[in-house]
Amino acid sequence: MEQKSIVSMAVVRRLPRYLRHLDELHKIGADKISSTALAARMELTASQVRQDLNCFGCFGQQGYGYNVEFLRQSLADILGLSGPRSAIIIGMGNLGHTLCNNFSFSRCGFSLGAAFDANPAVIGSVVAKIRVLDIKDLDKYCSAHKPDIAVLTLPAAPAPAIAHRLVQNGIKGIWNFTNTDLNETRALVENINFADSLMTLCYRIKTSNL
Amino acid sequence: MEQKSIVSMAVVRRLPRYLRHLDELHKIGADKISSTALAARMELTASQVRQDLNCFGCFGQQGYGYNVEFLRQSLADILGLSGPRSAIIIGMGNLGHTLCNNFSFSRCGFSLGAAFDANPAVIGSVVAKIRVLDIKDLDKYCSAHKPDIAVLTLPAAPAPAIAHRLVQNGIKGIWNFTNTDLNETRALVENINFADSLMTLCYRIKTSNL
Repeated sequence: MEQKSIVSMAVVRRLPRYLRHLDELHKIGADKISSTALAARMELTASQVRQDLNCFGCFGQQGYGYNVEFLRQSLADILGLSGPRSAIIIGMGNLGHTLCNNFSFSRCGFSLGAAFDANPAVIGSVVAKIRVLDIKDLDKYCSAHKPDIAVLTLPAAPAPAIAHRLVQNGIKGIWNFTNTDLNETRALVENINFADSLMTLCYRIKTSNL
Repeated sequence: MEQKSIVSMAVVRRLPRYLRHLDELHKIGADKISSTALAARMELTASQVRQDLNCFGCFGQQGYGYNVEFLRQSLADILGLSGPRSAIIIGMGNLGHTLCNNFSFSRCGFSLGAAFDANPAVIGSVVAKIRVLDIKDLDKYCSAHKPDIAVLTLPAAPAPAIAHRLVQNGIKGIWNFTNTDLNETRALVENINFADSLMTLCYRIKTSNL
């Protein structure tokens, strides 16, 4: 697949959205779509759609548009979703349970291998077929199974130290729900920050005319 | 407070992060901080910090830096966190429960008034002092209590229709966890999209040299 050497993160972050819309189009039986129609669905401009997708190869044909199934498969490949890479969860409170029970890691390119917690009340339990292990055994597990990423759903206070330990254990990526910035330069960190998001909504409402 | 008329969303989205770091500085008893030191904590440049904060007023003093407590209070005011505005949750599955039980809405400028679900098994229950009401009573509740925002933690399929109904009921903002794009132009939508985020991490790992 031809790909521009440097693709901006803004474009990369739109790829999963393109894929979502193509999945929906596929579900309703659409086999092709124009850049104009795809742009309208996604509230982008047709030119932006073409520019975004051109970063990764030639998918469209003038006068025809995009083949939905081909573009969908191509974007999944570009994102690396057929991996699968392996993930572990650190922190089996409510959010850890919710992710284990309800979130499809496999659809996002990962298989979930284990969960860890420090609380004796949850250690040893099994949540959605995932065994909860003692955080004390983290190093041993990492050395045996070499997970690619860790999902951090533990409290903010211990998060930086755990992140550091994970990186020392070869973790390449951290999906960080802890509402704290992790200054780990040796791993890729993707943050989901509930409070930052809701505060932003608060600001937008305050400054809007609604 | 003097404020530039148009502040870019990229700057707005950094405000909660500034506030978080100032909260931490306050906790450890720091009373002032230079733009250079604040920038280092946040992995920004000193010039970016000064530019960002200058969008909202004059907070720093050359040779002194920023007064932590004053800047912290000012950013909280700018974000509108002392509101409080009112919120409701739609969808009391695992994620709805997790947010009710573990997330501090008040710290983000909101008070949570009620939760709604269609499942008779949860309707009538009380989660973290929040009563779960029947989704059938949504219009009646909105007309009596006029909530400002709705948190959508329901499945993707019914989300667009519910969002539309909420907007017709005067909802100004939607905090959207449903992994679907809501084309509601009459409300401000802030998305938290787990799958998009994890797919982005997948891409970044695939294309990195880690």
